[in-house]
Amino acid sequence: MILEASMLIDRLLDKIKEQQAPIVVGLDPSLDRLPPEILSAAYQAHGENRTGAAAAMLAFNHMIIDQIYDLVPAVKPQMAYYEQLGWHGMEVFEDTCQYAASKGLFVIADGKRGDIGSTSAAYASAYLGGTMSIDWLTVNPYLGDDCLKTFIHEIDVHDKGMFALVKTSNPSSAQLQDVRIETGERVYEVVARMIEKWSSERVGKEGYSAVGAVVGATYPEELASLRTIMPTSLFLVPGYGAQGGTAKDIVSALDSKGLGALVNSSRGIIYASPLEGETSAEAIRRATVTMKEDLLQARRACQKK
Amino acid sequence: MILEASMLIDRLLDKIKEQQAPIVVGLDPSLDRLPPEILSAAYQAHGENRTGAAAAMLAFNHMIIDQIYDLVPAVKPQMAYYEQLGWHGMEVFEDTCQYAASKGLFVIADGKRGDIGSTSAAYASAYLGGTMSIDWLTVNPYLGDDCLKTFIHEIDVHDKGMFALVKTSNPSSAQLQDVRIETGERVYEVVARMIEKWSSERVGKEGYSAVGAVVGATYPEELASLRTIMPTSLFLVPGYGAQGGTAKDIVSALDSKGLGALVNSSRGIIYASPLEGETSAEAIRRATVTMKEDLLQARRACQKK
Repeated sequence: MILEASMLIDRLLDKIKEQQAPIVVGLDPSLDRLPPEILSAAYQAHGENRTGAAAAMLAFNHMIIDQIYDLVPAVKPQMAYYEQLGWHGMEVFEDTCQYAASKGLFVIADGKRGDIGSTSAAYASAYLGGTMSIDWLTVNPYLGDDCLKTFIHEIDVHDKGMFALVKTSNPSSAQLQDVRIETGERVYEVVARMIEKWSSERVGKEGYSAVGAVVGATYPEELASLRTIMPTSLFLVPGYGAQGGTAKDIVSALDSKGLGALVNSSRGIIYASPLEGETSAEAIRRATVTMKEDLLQARRACQKK
Repeated sequence: MILEASMLIDRLLDKIKEQQAPIVVGLDPSLDRLPPEILSAAYQAHGENRTGAAAAMLAFNHMIIDQIYDLVPAVKPQMAYYEQLGWHGMEVFEDTCQYAASKGLFVIADGKRGDIGSTSAAYASAYLGGTMSIDWLTVNPYLGDDCLKTFIHEIDVHDKGMFALVKTSNPSSAQLQDVRIETGERVYEVVARMIEKWSSERVGKEGYSAVGAVVGATYPEELASLRTIMPTSLFLVPGYGAQGGTAKDIVSALDSKGLGALVNSSRGIIYASPLEGETSAEAIRRATVTMKEDLLQARRACQKK
């Protein structure tokens, strides 16, 4: 199936080219790290309780989105941070997705969901069924393809996408994912082949599909080898910045047009420390511009070789 | 660390012995399967929208809980079904957990969460941090032990528990979980050993801990062999009933006192078809009693051999 140019994957790739930014900003609002002026204003208006905390989170996200929507194509709210406030937090999550979409941003819901078929179908319809302003959902492959197929179904029906965990950015990802199996392959390579099969049947005009993979920037060798195993899958690359991944580590995931991956930065952008005389908002914008330049420079350096 | 008799695991096991029911009822409310009288009453009171749907779900859960709280020790809300209604559904989820706890039921939040360390810490504090009426959370091990350790931390601090996915009940669970690695072990056995290590350091007076494992009833051989690898881990056993697992398949997970596992039934109980003259509520109670008897009979048959 060849998708039309107006389909999700191509709209995203067009925007990445236009903005020269294969970047997604992670919206991971943690109450103890919000700018104090936002937190105190919300507590004053709504009380020092879950309602006040939720209002602070939403105001923080609005501030971030207002600073970055013209610089980068996508945001990635990490659901765990919203779930910490229970249903009040989930209301903030939904409102955040809606506000981001209204600003023209693509939205990746980072929930790493996955269950047996009938239950995964409920997750798939919840997040990719078209009622929420969400374009992609991250999913966990441990339950195998009767789980993943339910997401593929919604992707095909509603023009959505998913990123399956393949090789994650955390220190202990090797423990299961890198285990070598009888055939000599590693576990994450088994997952990679599962995903690439679905992806290759859904490529758009640039040769990529909306069926993607999470591959950590913190494992550059694996990132490069997975690019070979998964030539059509869009990569969601966490681990840049706060987790230690560098632009140089990531370049192998991008093609000569700068396409093929969305590099995520969360803490490095949303909690950027203001320089003297700068507001929190200005610091966020500056950190985003700096990341864009950092990736562009690394690409240029790589192309010269 | 030997836990006191008043700790979570021993309180659960005492209740299982008292009720002769190693059973957990899954609360998986699906709008299209609710008793019509509950749905229409809620729509009439709140409108045919997300608020009305949420009210119907909550009323359905109250009805189930009222029928079963004196028969079985625990309930397991499957989070996907609540997330389908967005934050309205998450409010029902929280209220359901609270109502179940108020009736003396143990609550297992079935969310299969898991992420990198800092994010898993947010999930762990959300669900096991003591603000919600939740005792156990199901977790996905694909990211390895820096993910799982954050849950262990909350478990130790707040006297909570977790069930890690080891061998799931779905048809494609073999795809990754059964892959044989270089040492000859299967992937799910690698996970089993990780979990058993933490479990064995936290056993209560009956020799089990609150650090448990999800092991499907649909794979009885694996269930028996995992009992040997994980002698101290409490098993959460899905797959009985609607998914095809039988009482005989499950008996190997239980010791001579009938302890060691919680067998889940969701659809088989909550959507039990009323016999002539029976209400939906009566059908739910009857199905629960039938499942108790079925498990008791299978245990007796096994002990005679």
